[in-house]
Amino acid sequence: MKILINGEPGESISVLDRGFQYGDGVFETLAVANGQPLLWDRHMRRFFHGAMRLGIQAPAEGLLRREAEQVCRGASRGVLKIMLTRGVSGRGYAPGPEAAPTRTVGLLPWPDYPATYRTDGVNVQFCHTLITRHNILAGLKHLNRLEQILARMELKDGCAEGLMQDETGHVIEGTMTNLFVVSRGTLLTPDLKSSGVTGVMRGLVLERAPALSIDCRVTGIKRENILDADEVFLTNSLIGVWPVRRIDSREYPAGTVTRQIQEVMRDATVAD
Amino acid sequence: MKILINGEPGESISVLDRGFQYGDGVFETLAVANGQPLLWDRHMRRFFHGAMRLGIQAPAEGLLRREAEQVCRGASRGVLKIMLTRGVSGRGYAPGPEAAPTRTVGLLPWPDYPATYRTDGVNVQFCHTLITRHNILAGLKHLNRLEQILARMELKDGCAEGLMQDETGHVIEGTMTNLFVVSRGTLLTPDLKSSGVTGVMRGLVLERAPALSIDCRVTGIKRENILDADEVFLTNSLIGVWPVRRIDSREYPAGTVTRQIQEVMRDATVAD
Repeated sequence: MKILINGEPGESISVLDRGFQYGDGVFETLAVANGQPLLWDRHMRRFFHGAMRLGIQAPAEGLLRREAEQVCRGASRGVLKIMLTRGVSGRGYAPGPEAAPTRTVGLLPWPDYPATYRTDGVNVQFCHTLITRHNILAGLKHLNRLEQILARMELKDGCAEGLMQDETGHVIEGTMTNLFVVSRGTLLTPDLKSSGVTGVMRGLVLERAPALSIDCRVTGIKRENILDADEVFLTNSLIGVWPVRRIDSREYPAGTVTRQIQEVMRDATVAD
Repeated sequence: MKILINGEPGESISVLDRGFQYGDGVFETLAVANGQPLLWDRHMRRFFHGAMRLGIQAPAEGLLRREAEQVCRGASRGVLKIMLTRGVSGRGYAPGPEAAPTRTVGLLPWPDYPATYRTDGVNVQFCHTLITRHNILAGLKHLNRLEQILARMELKDGCAEGLMQDETGHVIEGTMTNLFVVSRGTLLTPDLKSSGVTGVMRGLVLERAPALSIDCRVTGIKRENILDADEVFLTNSLIGVWPVRRIDSREYPAGTVTRQIQEVMRDATVAD
């Protein structure tokens, strides 16, 4: 583990940092292969957009890139986590004039998911914990993650991921993944205008699917649409594409669309 | 400023603490007068309830009390802030088995609100930032505070507080206060079942109002109900009771009910 805090190697931050006090910041997690973070430009676009939406002054991209290269150097694979908070200020929600942003750039261990998750697929469940709608933070990868944590804590043994619904019954995403379903030959993924995180891998799937002659639509998806679907898969920047083998008692094949998408995303993911 | 981190004087926490990584924790802020935190039992009830809802192992109350007395000793007035996070664990929303909670107990400076806020009242505005509904975290004072921060950042010069509505047009609370309105002799405060923080001072007002022969009701309150109201006031543990003098262009008198409530809350608040 190697972490730079505002450019200096470190392991601790001020207890008064607004990241700790209020979750006042954004983050990115990138897959690292052969010393290089993958999909850098896409992650940076979301990162700078998030910082702008929260009104936090972002560092220059070149600075982040140099720090990322410094921590990733020599790593055959790993996870690059970049965080930006509004920094240290006095108590109270209003940021003080003295607050200067805190950035952390760290290389963390590669998660040890079984290789079979990608080849054979995963078991998934529906979570009871709802994801809120009309969220001003929709789309952003921000530091307020309690809904996802509570949903994640529901997972039964043997379940690799849980799906989160909003109070209208729309399924939005997994706790740490975006959701895709294949229904009568069309690839569908939930609309994230009012909740959720617009995943970098999700964006890339949506861009590349048309070249495979796969019809693709961003839309509202309910639980019954998922249970009726022909194929289901999950994405994020670390896992790439996981076929879903089972949701509760419904079983799915790892179908041809999922395999095509896995194949075309190979350059953007880290091999197991 | 005097802070104990897991019982030891300190100023920094691990960058891997889940409080910093995800806002995974709860907090309390108590007024301190003459070396003593006010309304300790009520704050502790909410604190332990919040920890339980998040599944975080809380420390013994006696230990917190001793630490609180240690940091508050000799302070004529101040703010006691107690935080509890799920502690340090590896990356990912699932808490690792190694996570041991982090507690911080700190004395922070008394906020320098003008004394006229309590005597003459404050100017308030409606915020555009919505507060989400159907929030599994409703009622808790948790560390995911981005909605409140974004709302707070909207405040115009001269506005001491902003009111937050949900997407159905119900006004839930201020960014850092609970809301009361007096309408045809009845005291009303918003229902917090689906959003908001159940303030300790709010609870005490609801308990004490009946003894003053003031009818009291927890209910849905919309913007028009507030603009039609006879009196409006705001509460929290630090400010006590602030009359609202103006919301946008509507002016209010600091009416008799507000004055009665201020008077009966005097023992529970810190004098300016």
